[in-house]
Amino acid sequence: MPDASTRDAEIIAVGSEMLTSQRLDTNSLFITDQLNALGVEVRRKLIVGDDREILAAAVCDAMTHAHIVIVTGGLGPTEDDLTREAVAQALARPLVFSQKLADAIEERFRRRGRKMAANNKRQAMLVEGADALPNPNGTAVGQWIVAADGRVIMMLPGPPGELKPMFANECVPRLASRLPAQVIRARLYRVTGMTESDLDHLIAPVYSKFVNPSTTILASPGDIQVHVRARCDTEGEAERLLAEVGDPIEGLLGDRIFSRNGDSLEAVVGELLRARDATLAVAESCTGGMIAERITSIPGSSDYFSGGFIVYSNRMKENLLGVERALIEQHGVVSEEVARAMAQCARLRSGATYAVSTTGEAGPESSSGVPVGTVYVGFAGPGPAAHGDTVEARKFNLPGDRTRIRMFAAQGALDYLRRRILGL
Amino acid sequence: MPDASTRDAEIIAVGSEMLTSQRLDTNSLFITDQLNALGVEVRRKLIVGDDREILAAAVCDAMTHAHIVIVTGGLGPTEDDLTREAVAQALARPLVFSQKLADAIEERFRRRGRKMAANNKRQAMLVEGADALPNPNGTAVGQWIVAADGRVIMMLPGPPGELKPMFANECVPRLASRLPAQVIRARLYRVTGMTESDLDHLIAPVYSKFVNPSTTILASPGDIQVHVRARCDTEGEAERLLAEVGDPIEGLLGDRIFSRNGDSLEAVVGELLRARDATLAVAESCTGGMIAERITSIPGSSDYFSGGFIVYSNRMKENLLGVERALIEQHGVVSEEVARAMAQCARLRSGATYAVSTTGEAGPESSSGVPVGTVYVGFAGPGPAAHGDTVEARKFNLPGDRTRIRMFAAQGALDYLRRRILGL
Repeated sequence: MPDASTRDAEIIAVGSEMLTSQRLDTNSLFITDQLNALGVEVRRKLIVGDDREILAAAVCDAMTHAHIVIVTGGLGPTEDDLTREAVAQALARPLVFSQKLADAIEERFRRRGRKMAANNKRQAMLVEGADALPNPNGTAVGQWIVAADGRVIMMLPGPPGELKPMFANECVPRLASRLPAQVIRARLYRVTGMTESDLDHLIAPVYSKFVNPSTTILASPGDIQVHVRARCDTEGEAERLLAEVGDPIEGLLGDRIFSRNGDSLEAVVGELLRARDATLAVAESCTGGMIAERITSIPGSSDYFSGGFIVYSNRMKENLLGVERALIEQHGVVSEEVARAMAQCARLRSGATYAVSTTGEAGPESSSGVPVGTVYVGFAGPGPAAHGDTVEARKFNLPGDRTRIRMFAAQGALDYLRRRILGL
Repeated sequence: MPDASTRDAEIIAVGSEMLTSQRLDTNSLFITDQLNALGVEVRRKLIVGDDREILAAAVCDAMTHAHIVIVTGGLGPTEDDLTREAVAQALARPLVFSQKLADAIEERFRRRGRKMAANNKRQAMLVEGADALPNPNGTAVGQWIVAADGRVIMMLPGPPGELKPMFANECVPRLASRLPAQVIRARLYRVTGMTESDLDHLIAPVYSKFVNPSTTILASPGDIQVHVRARCDTEGEAERLLAEVGDPIEGLLGDRIFSRNGDSLEAVVGELLRARDATLAVAESCTGGMIAERITSIPGSSDYFSGGFIVYSNRMKENLLGVERALIEQHGVVSEEVARAMAQCARLRSGATYAVSTTGEAGPESSSGVPVGTVYVGFAGPGPAAHGDTVEARKFNLPGDRTRIRMFAAQGALDYLRRRILGL
């Protein structure tokens, strides 16, 4: 890798609220993503309160560790907002008042029919030698400073709606022009239907031979992301390396890969339905609305989502869906037979092309007699030509607490639907 | 406050995955909460990768800033797990092999019918002078070290299921015995139905006069938490101070406070229903299952939740719920009339005591002609004695994107339900 030493970054998030038990710094995720795309690695992240001495010391320290230092937050107009002062102190440079910036801030207030408060003038103070980074979304301008030894330090406003466009539009181009040319190409696979350790066991023999491309595996319940990233001097070399690792991984994972572009499973299922002019209904017991909520989180889902039945009680399963009481009494409410009947009833009552259902025991205690974590997912759809409808069910034994069991069940139901639509 | 200087902590989270764009350190939230309850403030949080030199330097630095240093992660058996070595280096103490710990780890493997791998012996290395902190949930023991000057450094395993019990059971009692006695009493109000800035404007005149008790306000869509915390030498003094700030705040916020014990709105509504032997049904359009999902996230909700109708299309509103087509055509699907009809139909079809409904425009584009963010919440319930049913609706104009509008709408519907059940 060319000149890796100039590709180190440290992120300092400023704000006492991020030292409470309720708040995390999340801006750094966006910044990290953008930096990684430039071939820059984040070496440390620091979170400090609104304390000038601690912040100034942290900035000094960061400048000895990293070539790129990014300070977020603390650029507001109040006495608590000390990032400007602390960075000036760390760099041993004075703060300079910019009449031009003060006028721009005042103009911004005027346009909104408000008067600028006196303390907003603090936002017109620049560290000597800094470029002001315009902020179309707020009064806090950012600052970009190049130190004598070429290290870069930038200050960005804390609100994500201000920080993100400023970093993408102002900082990324400035950084790119200072960094040695490098081509980065990446692949992302989203996978479901296997555990993280099974997946790693399967693909580690492929990726562990390579440092470049780098492979990262990230898991949340029922949803594993495999990131493969190659950095090279030329595009051809990056694509070649990516194929060398990515193609065998794709072969091993096969149709457990549900997305290659980052789309969620509910978005993938939505596109499958849309492409077929098909519609979907759901009948949810143990997932209690989670599948419907995910499907309808996608804009435009009304084109293909007919609706759903949340049938939490046996009585609702009978009265609302029309599942026969005898079936529930004979097989138990958590059973393959009831899952199938729920799906078929939902499909017939809604007129949808497809329906999925869930019935299971999410805990913490079992009320149905079956072990906690037992979930049946039902499916109903049109059968092959000249045959009747397809009505099926699948049993899952799911680990974890109530929340995780419900999440796994919803993911399992959506993936079962994806597989059936695709005929897998 | 007595001896505040010994109540500073720094948390160092170790793990390269937390420097990616996908992962955050969340253990620190739990640790912060526990520390705050001891009167300890977190001054800095640092996140570093699996790099021994960087970590050792960070530990050295932290020991100069804070009296309590907590290092999480990097205690596993692999070569990447370098926390033991880095802390030993920072403290200039050797690592000592503990046969007793090695035997315990081996025994743990044996009980599970597995053989201990050779590299697990690394987990039996203790910094000289350290207490081993037992880990009933994994092979990584924690370590507790008191430096010559009285500063404390502890190492904890990264997985939350191992870290949390170890910190609560082993570290908190040890810390408490070293800290000057202090009594902490807190109140928590969860509030909905107003914006964060309106709430702050209302109660700031009360709380801003006090440093102790401290007041913190944390907002998420439709749900604001007000934390008031008093620290004193005696319980009586703490309670007196808490009342001095908390009572006027309660008076100002009134019935917008839905919880005083941290319970979520869905838990509060569930308890109200349970106490009345009442049941609930929902009919969701724009919220698409979010209300049902929240209600059923509470264990035991099958006692009071009958079920729900996710009626995303007009056809489903007519066929499934029985809302009259003429009503939709006359008033539009996003209207007070349709919201009321949805609630009453859901109540009658399910036999539930109460029903709530949502119909609205969550965006990003408006398909119904009404502005994005317009949401009607309907309510149906029994009327006053000798009168008919109560069937009402309320209009909301909600800000934000699709996700926020749906979250605000679900919260608004649950709060509307709470108020109607309580007769507010």
